[in-house]
Amino acid sequence: MRSSVKVFAPATVANVVCGFDVLGFAVNEPGDEVIMRVTDTPGVVISKITGDEGRLPLNPAKNTVSASVQDYLKHIGRTDMGIDIELHKKMPIGSGLGSSSASTVAGLFAINTLFDNQLSAKELVPFAMKGEELACGYGHADNVAPALLGGFVLIRSYEPLDVISLPFPEEMYAAIVYPEVDVPTKDARQMIRSKVFLKDAVKQWGNVAGLVTGLFTKDYDLIGRSMVDGLVEPTRSILIPDFYKMRSIAMEMGAISFGISGSGPSVFALTKDEATGHAITQALQKQLKSIQINSLSFVSSVNKKGPVILD
Amino acid sequence: MRSSVKVFAPATVANVVCGFDVLGFAVNEPGDEVIMRVTDTPGVVISKITGDEGRLPLNPAKNTVSASVQDYLKHIGRTDMGIDIELHKKMPIGSGLGSSSASTVAGLFAINTLFDNQLSAKELVPFAMKGEELACGYGHADNVAPALLGGFVLIRSYEPLDVISLPFPEEMYAAIVYPEVDVPTKDARQMIRSKVFLKDAVKQWGNVAGLVTGLFTKDYDLIGRSMVDGLVEPTRSILIPDFYKMRSIAMEMGAISFGISGSGPSVFALTKDEATGHAITQALQKQLKSIQINSLSFVSSVNKKGPVILD
Repeated sequence: MRSSVKVFAPATVANVVCGFDVLGFAVNEPGDEVIMRVTDTPGVVISKITGDEGRLPLNPAKNTVSASVQDYLKHIGRTDMGIDIELHKKMPIGSGLGSSSASTVAGLFAINTLFDNQLSAKELVPFAMKGEELACGYGHADNVAPALLGGFVLIRSYEPLDVISLPFPEEMYAAIVYPEVDVPTKDARQMIRSKVFLKDAVKQWGNVAGLVTGLFTKDYDLIGRSMVDGLVEPTRSILIPDFYKMRSIAMEMGAISFGISGSGPSVFALTKDEATGHAITQALQKQLKSIQINSLSFVSSVNKKGPVILD
Repeated sequence: MRSSVKVFAPATVANVVCGFDVLGFAVNEPGDEVIMRVTDTPGVVISKITGDEGRLPLNPAKNTVSASVQDYLKHIGRTDMGIDIELHKKMPIGSGLGSSSASTVAGLFAINTLFDNQLSAKELVPFAMKGEELACGYGHADNVAPALLGGFVLIRSYEPLDVISLPFPEEMYAAIVYPEVDVPTKDARQMIRSKVFLKDAVKQWGNVAGLVTGLFTKDYDLIGRSMVDGLVEPTRSILIPDFYKMRSIAMEMGAISFGISGSGPSVFALTKDEATGHAITQALQKQLKSIQINSLSFVSSVNKKGPVILD
């Protein structure tokens, strides 16, 4: 058994516009890192967190990384283990890019590596979902499943959990911009109406079917015209500065599609190549700057690997 | 230009359980036949209808076949033409198998054949949808699109109309049973609630995505577990005698899935082979017989061709 491991787990774009709560994909950057060491003192401790500006709890029962590692150890009957965790946040918290998911998944991948991969990546999903419940108040899988499996992922069903990897065009890029405004996931969810018109739901599942078809056939035009969300985006976009202005800019510059990443405030455009991605993020950041909003940007192809061992 | 043509157009299974208003597929039988002749007298007339027990109108403005042929002639600027139509119903009316759609599509395919295929099959879809509006009060495309194109079809969007052919396992069969009870499409639609819970809609589009994925990957198990409808079936099944009993029988006999065809009362099971399909229809008909309900049955692979010229 290894005595330590350093793991990277990727950020993720959940919902993917029309696929609210059922679709997500992983990106190569940003992401979080976890360093995990076996110690002689039974119990799981978080000895260090960097990059969180003091926002994340060090209490092992309240931090999603340690809490899900504790769940894992309980599951395999090894609560006697001593585990020390360092969490290095390399991505913004509350960004809509699956920040808690990246940390949780890095921790679970690390502990599973220390235990010689006793569980498969798919088997880790429920543990990561419990971590999401702790972090966001809602145990969703559309960030943790792609973070664990890599690629584009469909969560067909939650009860029972049914996670399915989808194909995607390999040369497709995600151009992500995170406007530095605060949109906690909990609040973003509470804004959404609990009931919707059936006719609007029909449009949405027509688009979900179109997006899945476009991913299989690598039909960018179909992917683009399917990525429409008439149910959630009209509400959530209110919290995102210049959302529709940014959409216009991105689409005029050749984006396949544009939408909110997860519950926002990050937005993303899908593009057919990396250069268009960079041009779009620059233009969007310029737009945000013009209204005095700072932002971060990332341009990445779809991450195929999920978490990786760094050391 | 031909002076006459005889055309067959197929029955169709719309909705396909989870894909309410967006999915449908064509079958090889049953279907309707239209004989169309060019005459010297301008105008479209219906000279004969058989197999309808007097239920369909002979008035050219009220019969969907003649009305959509009139629309076609108007579109191509040939209202000067004289067209005589014989409609031979070879399938039950009000069965949930796209009866009006089969007739309308046969007529449109016939007139388009007489005019050397001036329009493509996809271009005929809007004309057939107008026919559906006349017949059912609602211009849906999930019967007419598969009847025109053959195969499994997604109607991603109605405005603008976006019709996409999907792949399917070629060895898959549909075992269809029509219980001879009356469920007019208009009434079946009016029973459905106009608002649904977002959480139920999410389940539905997870399943639609799963079904499309299963069709692409020819994964029968995924197709089966995706064909669940928590929104429309619970209401519509009330009108179908012994619906849940029939589901149990079909699933126990090895069906991939079981559900309502269109708005019912026909039901269908998907099977992995023809023999299982026949065994299931026999068992379901026996069940219906035991509660004094007569029925018809059809076993067919997915129709790949759409309408065909018979003569």
